[in-house]
Amino acid sequence: MNERFFMHQAIELAREAFEDGEVPVGAVIVKSGEIVGRGRNRREKSKNALDHAEIEAINEACRALGGWRLWECDLFVTLEPCPMCAGAIVNARIRKVFFACFDRKNGAVGSTVNLFAIAGSYRPEYEAGINEAECSRLMSDFFKKLRK
Amino acid sequence: MNERFFMHQAIELAREAFEDGEVPVGAVIVKSGEIVGRGRNRREKSKNALDHAEIEAINEACRALGGWRLWECDLFVTLEPCPMCAGAIVNARIRKVFFACFDRKNGAVGSTVNLFAIAGSYRPEYEAGINEAECSRLMSDFFKKLRK
Repeated sequence: MNERFFMHQAIELAREAFEDGEVPVGAVIVKSGEIVGRGRNRREKSKNALDHAEIEAINEACRALGGWRLWECDLFVTLEPCPMCAGAIVNARIRKVFFACFDRKNGAVGSTVNLFAIAGSYRPEYEAGINEAECSRLMSDFFKKLRK
Repeated sequence: MNERFFMHQAIELAREAFEDGEVPVGAVIVKSGEIVGRGRNRREKSKNALDHAEIEAINEACRALGGWRLWECDLFVTLEPCPMCAGAIVNARIRKVFFACFDRKNGAVGSTVNLFAIAGSYRPEYEAGINEAECSRLMSDFFKKLRK
């Protein structure tokens, strides 16, 4: 699987969020080499606390595949998932999560807690660091712009 | 505030889920003594991993109140929230969560982890045990029926 290619697709969605004044996070869900779900943060515009990139992508993938178990799916996201999104990934039984940067303040895959390592619970595989520099730069550009 | 009254409303929603063949969990969100969001589990019928009671209630409350911060809202739910729902409650800045029974296998407010006690993160208040006997009975009746 071309991991950098799929992360790049997630970054494109994060850039869309950036242009729209949202914290730039994007996600795609991939099954057998094909994208089955896409999402990006739109919390401010939608005025909904649940509208994170991963949630939108999981919703789309469940609809596309017609079931709530996304067994053979992998998720690519530009930022370490928050507790809500990490929990949603567990509930959806996603196989593996690739994320670019850690979110030291709110990440739930190692930074504040690790929801992918709870004994007795479903534990997705995960890998951090793909296209990390590009995603960190996108985040810091966003917060620089916001402070202006 | 009449806590037993609002938990009873959540139980009514859990009973609806039960009748529909879903794990019986119901939730309501209350602001200034008024219900602004309702939800119940519908994951099997909707074929969507995200369709837990709390998520539906938060979606409805965000729409009703026109913002993603549910600052002065309390949530009543029949079962201890899972990691996804506990994370969503934190993201929505809900003031206080009342739940009836603990979910020792998947609960994220003390049972497997406590997402309402992460240092540096928003920490909702919570209280367990309101109408606990009734909610536990509803759950055990459901799983008895399922095994038949």
